[in-house]
Amino acid sequence: MPGKSELYTRITKMQEQLVKQDLDGALFIYPIDVYYFTGTRQNGSLWIPVEGEPVLMVRKSFSRAKAESPLADIRPFPPSKEFSTVIPVEVRKIGMTFDVTPVQQFQFYTKLLPECNFADITASYRALRSVKSGYELDQLKKSGSMLCSVFQQVPQFFKQGMTELELATEFEAHLRKAGSEGLVRMRAFNQELFYGLTVSENGATYGFFDGAVTGKGMSKAAAHGPADGLLPENTPVLMDYTAVYNGYITDMTRIFVLGRLDDELKHAFDISLQIQQQLQNALKPGAVCEDLFQQSLAIAHRSGLGEKFMGMPGEQARFVGHGTGLELDELPVLAQGFNSTLKAGNVIAIEPKFVFPGKGVVGIENTFVVTDSGGIKITDLDDGVVYL
Amino acid sequence: MPGKSELYTRITKMQEQLVKQDLDGALFIYPIDVYYFTGTRQNGSLWIPVEGEPVLMVRKSFSRAKAESPLADIRPFPPSKEFSTVIPVEVRKIGMTFDVTPVQQFQFYTKLLPECNFADITASYRALRSVKSGYELDQLKKSGSMLCSVFQQVPQFFKQGMTELELATEFEAHLRKAGSEGLVRMRAFNQELFYGLTVSENGATYGFFDGAVTGKGMSKAAAHGPADGLLPENTPVLMDYTAVYNGYITDMTRIFVLGRLDDELKHAFDISLQIQQQLQNALKPGAVCEDLFQQSLAIAHRSGLGEKFMGMPGEQARFVGHGTGLELDELPVLAQGFNSTLKAGNVIAIEPKFVFPGKGVVGIENTFVVTDSGGIKITDLDDGVVYL
Repeated sequence: MPGKSELYTRITKMQEQLVKQDLDGALFIYPIDVYYFTGTRQNGSLWIPVEGEPVLMVRKSFSRAKAESPLADIRPFPPSKEFSTVIPVEVRKIGMTFDVTPVQQFQFYTKLLPECNFADITASYRALRSVKSGYELDQLKKSGSMLCSVFQQVPQFFKQGMTELELATEFEAHLRKAGSEGLVRMRAFNQELFYGLTVSENGATYGFFDGAVTGKGMSKAAAHGPADGLLPENTPVLMDYTAVYNGYITDMTRIFVLGRLDDELKHAFDISLQIQQQLQNALKPGAVCEDLFQQSLAIAHRSGLGEKFMGMPGEQARFVGHGTGLELDELPVLAQGFNSTLKAGNVIAIEPKFVFPGKGVVGIENTFVVTDSGGIKITDLDDGVVYL
Repeated sequence: MPGKSELYTRITKMQEQLVKQDLDGALFIYPIDVYYFTGTRQNGSLWIPVEGEPVLMVRKSFSRAKAESPLADIRPFPPSKEFSTVIPVEVRKIGMTFDVTPVQQFQFYTKLLPECNFADITASYRALRSVKSGYELDQLKKSGSMLCSVFQQVPQFFKQGMTELELATEFEAHLRKAGSEGLVRMRAFNQELFYGLTVSENGATYGFFDGAVTGKGMSKAAAHGPADGLLPENTPVLMDYTAVYNGYITDMTRIFVLGRLDDELKHAFDISLQIQQQLQNALKPGAVCEDLFQQSLAIAHRSGLGEKFMGMPGEQARFVGHGTGLELDELPVLAQGFNSTLKAGNVIAIEPKFVFPGKGVVGIENTFVVTDSGGIKITDLDDGVVYL
């Protein structure tokens, strides 16, 4: 669990951002945002003044918050008329993460603090989260080890005649028994994920998910992931999964095949490894996110696979990697239009994939840490196609 | 899947609400809200004018939306300057569900439609959702049967010496293999659930969850549900789970015991059945939600169990049942302060529970349909404690 000095370091860094944005403080209300600074996941709000001690106000559970968080000032959520004892009357400018604050919640606070202006601090807050501390890297490494240990067991439980759902269920159960925490948090509006994907030809399907691979899913309401079709022979089975350890998420993909893979798909898989290698070498501080996407796309095009890269025809994703941490979709994103530069301590899942309608999907995914000497792979397992 | 007439009936009922609220139309952007009216779960927005044909605008996947939804007017999400071809320039008052609309999304639409005023239609929309159609009741019954079939198998996989997490994993895997869709959607800000709970003494723990039972969870980041402690003998093991079928969620709880249950807990369990019986009889159109909670509380107090009812000391929940459907936390809620009346076709999980710190939790939960002759139980399995 994050200790007191870890948490106060995060708070201090956030306060430095508040100074830069000329804000008097920030109010965090989204559960994982509050957890990041307090070490406890409760229903409550956190006031971080630009200077001085933060105040955690808890609706439920105050008892558990007190037991879990090392923060100095934890209080039951105050009645409205006492709110000024937490946020002083001289405060005028308050930051909030507008990306995850519902309008009803926003209206509650704007009514409570009618003299204040509110500003969006999503960008600076997410930038702070994107650089992982030593403690966070340790959690991510443990998450990665857990995930690798389950991928290694796949040949033991992958049987001929299984459906996508049956194989998915085995993977999920092994992952859960290994200690994965279940809920995979995503921040983006309109996205959601249950564990990950086991897909064969169904992987080459149109869908809402902001990724290369969707899957048919089990119904129109659960339109993502495994379906109930049999896993055929001589067809790539793509398994793309996440593990969650102490809240921290890693992400990886491997390809399994009953029988053999045709040459076109084998070639595409090799190109995905080539892209991964190129990006791993480039995962150094200062690299420009968009450049890494464009380099990947260029390799795909040179190999005659541009039309298959990262999605179904006409709906290809314009990215090749994403940050991960307490949420699966953290910054930075290696995507078109992202001109920010990498920083040491960014943790990024790189996932070049090629989609062949009617045949399935091939590709690779690993989670890397950005360092001065390039990406260090924390989902440390052989990349090759596993033939069964 | 909901057919064309089912979907247009829902749309027409929503339009009747828009008339009452004097609105020119409603813009739905939250995925499950869009699904409810369109039958497809994509990343897109739905414009329902107060009169006439709705327009589904899809960011991703347009192809899949076209293939899945029977709505007449489905378009790629328009560029900003063409937005007036969807929402006519004479429109002035637009409803949105402010409970689930993030401020960033809200600002996008208010900027796009600067002449418009926006109003919160959360209440009328949720009221519409709370009354289930014949199609929806069929899905809920199938969801309930699936859930019962797994509860029936518990004696086959509950072994002495298991941890909470191990038993939870078995339940989850059986449920998944039976076809449950995984993601359990919750609407309330700050709530989340992974499948459900397997808890022994750990059930009597303080926590963020808006329910009687929390569990220690696997870390401070996943602070809900099973932990890794052994399941002791002579202690109630509470299993509270949800199943999801075609998007529809049912909810039930049973108690399992290795050995025997002490008399105090046995008595409390009997009182939970008594409360359930009283409420089942009362689940008729016209009953006042709050009254049902007060009746339950009165029975608990008369039985000397008021202090144990629905939560840990000082943090007891003030409800005894909740609506369920496409989300686990639908209307109506049988809770203090809810003065609305029941309607035929409401589907409600009734869950009287008693929490004994240091000993565990006992209680019952079933999902019922409100009818003229009282509640019909759709999680139709024997209520008794299962001794192993």
